[in-house]
Amino acid sequence: MIDALLVVAHGSRRAESNDEVRVLTERVRHAAGHRFAAIECAFLELAPPSIPDGLARLIDHGATHITVLPYFLAAGRHVAEDIPAEVEHTRRRHPGITIEIAPYLGTSDAMPGLLLDTVDATG
Amino acid sequence: MIDALLVVAHGSRRAESNDEVRVLTERVRHAAGHRFAAIECAFLELAPPSIPDGLARLIDHGATHITVLPYFLAAGRHVAEDIPAEVEHTRRRHPGITIEIAPYLGTSDAMPGLLLDTVDATG
Repeated sequence: MIDALLVVAHGSRRAESNDEVRVLTERVRHAAGHRFAAIECAFLELAPPSIPDGLARLIDHGATHITVLPYFLAAGRHVAEDIPAEVEHTRRRHPGITIEIAPYLGTSDAMPGLLLDTVDATG
Repeated sequence: MIDALLVVAHGSRRAESNDEVRVLTERVRHAAGHRFAAIECAFLELAPPSIPDGLARLIDHGATHITVLPYFLAAGRHVAEDIPAEVEHTRRRHPGITIEIAPYLGTSDAMPGLLLDTVDATG
């Protein structure tokens, strides 16, 4: 099993916001060490790569087990319906690849602590 | 100096999304222990309380130093302009109260680790 990770953000008309996601993904790569064979980001809309294109990149890298991580704070339609629909598209085309969708970021048990750490950074 | 914290989210037409922010704020209260005299949430739009109303609640609780924490993943116009404009409104009305705006959540150094923890929660 070759593990890979896809960080999925909403995507923005502001190029800077999309670049922030790309920089974050690079930081996740560093933090993850050798845990994943490949880590990419993708956008639900408004910026490339799309979710199917991001998944295709990981599959091209040899991934056989991909975790999709929704970089979203709330469980709206995007998390509940749109991301699963995009993932399903790739699942049907690549039945030999396992693709799981992780809980969206906002559900993390560590979120309250992270918010308090951010306050500390205010100085 | 009596410290208080205001968690500011965008606000959504989905009541569940706004309730998620309220539940998160309750979890932040537990995580913070006695560090803040009061912790409230507020919404930039689409849900009550507004930022001025949230700040007023904290001031009514006796707060003299308030940290505003933007619960946002990207530095868009909301973070750069709209939240500061709302805060400025209250600053002018209450010149004796110090109100600081913390970095928005997406900038946190701990974010890559939080993302990887969320993947672990996938089971």
